[in-house]
Amino acid sequence: MADTSRPVPEGARITVCEVGPRDGFQIEAAFIPTAKKIEIINALFAAGIRHMQVTSFVSPRAVPQLADAEAVLAGIDRPEGALITALIPNLRGAERAAAAGVDAVHTVVSASETHNRKNVNRGVDESLKDFEAVFALLSLAGVAVEGGIATAFGCPFEGVVPPEQVARIAKRYQELGAKSVGLGDTTGMATPATVRAAVQAIRAEAPGLGIGLHFHNTRGVGLACVMTGLAEGVTHYDASVGGLGGCPFAAGATGNICTEDLVYLLQESGYDTGIDLDKLIAAARLTQGVIGRDLPGQVIKAGPRLRRYDPGLTATAAG
Amino acid sequence: MADTSRPVPEGARITVCEVGPRDGFQIEAAFIPTAKKIEIINALFAAGIRHMQVTSFVSPRAVPQLADAEAVLAGIDRPEGALITALIPNLRGAERAAAAGVDAVHTVVSASETHNRKNVNRGVDESLKDFEAVFALLSLAGVAVEGGIATAFGCPFEGVVPPEQVARIAKRYQELGAKSVGLGDTTGMATPATVRAAVQAIRAEAPGLGIGLHFHNTRGVGLACVMTGLAEGVTHYDASVGGLGGCPFAAGATGNICTEDLVYLLQESGYDTGIDLDKLIAAARLTQGVIGRDLPGQVIKAGPRLRRYDPGLTATAAG
Repeated sequence: MADTSRPVPEGARITVCEVGPRDGFQIEAAFIPTAKKIEIINALFAAGIRHMQVTSFVSPRAVPQLADAEAVLAGIDRPEGALITALIPNLRGAERAAAAGVDAVHTVVSASETHNRKNVNRGVDESLKDFEAVFALLSLAGVAVEGGIATAFGCPFEGVVPPEQVARIAKRYQELGAKSVGLGDTTGMATPATVRAAVQAIRAEAPGLGIGLHFHNTRGVGLACVMTGLAEGVTHYDASVGGLGGCPFAAGATGNICTEDLVYLLQESGYDTGIDLDKLIAAARLTQGVIGRDLPGQVIKAGPRLRRYDPGLTATAAG
Repeated sequence: MADTSRPVPEGARITVCEVGPRDGFQIEAAFIPTAKKIEIINALFAAGIRHMQVTSFVSPRAVPQLADAEAVLAGIDRPEGALITALIPNLRGAERAAAAGVDAVHTVVSASETHNRKNVNRGVDESLKDFEAVFALLSLAGVAVEGGIATAFGCPFEGVVPPEQVARIAKRYQELGAKSVGLGDTTGMATPATVRAAVQAIRAEAPGLGIGLHFHNTRGVGLACVMTGLAEGVTHYDASVGGLGGCPFAAGATGNICTEDLVYLLQESGYDTGIDLDKLIAAARLTQGVIGRDLPGQVIKAGPRLRRYDPGLTATAAG
């Protein structure tokens, strides 16, 4: 991940990290057969996705949907250049992830004390202390760590999260050996202003640390936040195929920003994603079929920008 | 509308023009009773909306939904500072609009020849020629004209629309007496790059002419395009309550950018809209109830940014 405070120049490579198989699948109530998970993941690789969070090594009791983490990892393709990551909540998860052969793990601590206690039953500093053993283990195993910071743009229990709080955790991750942090917009509270403030605070506190941005489109402004990220020089964005995901506490709320919509925006803005949009749309349609309901992504419905209408159609007075 | 090529400074006033009662209602198959239309329009005024396209003076045979244009105009509130506009396709519409007492009309010509022929059965230059009589009539009647340019960011029949073509029409509107033009993203083909190109081309060709931007969220990037508009100094944006609207030719495609989501983005970015978001959400819920289906807006589902969750809730491992 580049660390620059200038806007990302046109033509630059942007990393689109697919997180649907983790952040999306985990909230689906009906178990998605392992073979179907693998089929979706492989279709995403075939579309050119190279950075993917494929599962989570959490307790199978807490998240039964991802109880097949090892089987998924054993079954998927590993195309040239792929970076396969998984979320881990603790040392036990780190052990499982390393044994299963991931390239990197994504740890998670919330920037807000209340959310962290509710999420992992620990204080923020307790979580950071626990990470010492996690980093030591993964360093020995040769597995990289992306330091995840949840509720980085606001907490649904505490409200405003000061950017200094996010920067302090980022700095601690850097001291532990992380090359990058991922800022999670857990419940869709990110806005251009909060994104700018968090990125700038981390740059000041932890120079050289890579930054990834993980937005949810809960309030419709996910891609507007990407515009701010690009203006701030951030080149790594998480997204979820079809816009899978959501929040179990916000009925009707949409999930992560949608991978196809993000890739469409980036490509039409002159960035290089290495992804084939048509194949990505096909992977999203496959996902939609497996999930069995309409997903919130828009490009999946409307198609690429220059898709032509039937010339026999007539228009209506329009503005 | 301000005409500057610098980014809109924080704290500046942004005009949010509500177009749901025109662009949204017109594609609804079931007739919305006139009293319900008036109730929604008045709720939007009560939320602080002051610029609204309330109907369209098109042929009642072409758009039966808006056959009650005169009755709607006669029944709505006119709060202090309101600017009430209506779309007109031709001289007959201009006569009706002037007689009904609008403050401004919004004319429409497509930037692409094919779309204009399909929309109004005329070439672009024929439409511009027809507007001479329209402007003359409205000038006598003391009614302002916003020059609408449809398919300004791309045409679903012709594909790419050169920005010079948009600028040429804008210049002609300026010569006819328009103080501003509205660039319509009729089928959701606008992207940050096409928005920047169109705005800059108009500024070069028709200095001093106001510019309004009218995006559809068909491919999910509507608010990203607003970010570009703001960076280019544009202070006028159309939007539709609840994200009403759409395109009769793109099944499942969403409609205009959503007014609540836009106002949320603008307010959280430090701009002044004069609109009360809570009251606007209430107006969107009222609209959703009248329309009888879930609308695509996100803030209507998730609520304002600092809405708190029940402290009794527990989280799940989240990123």
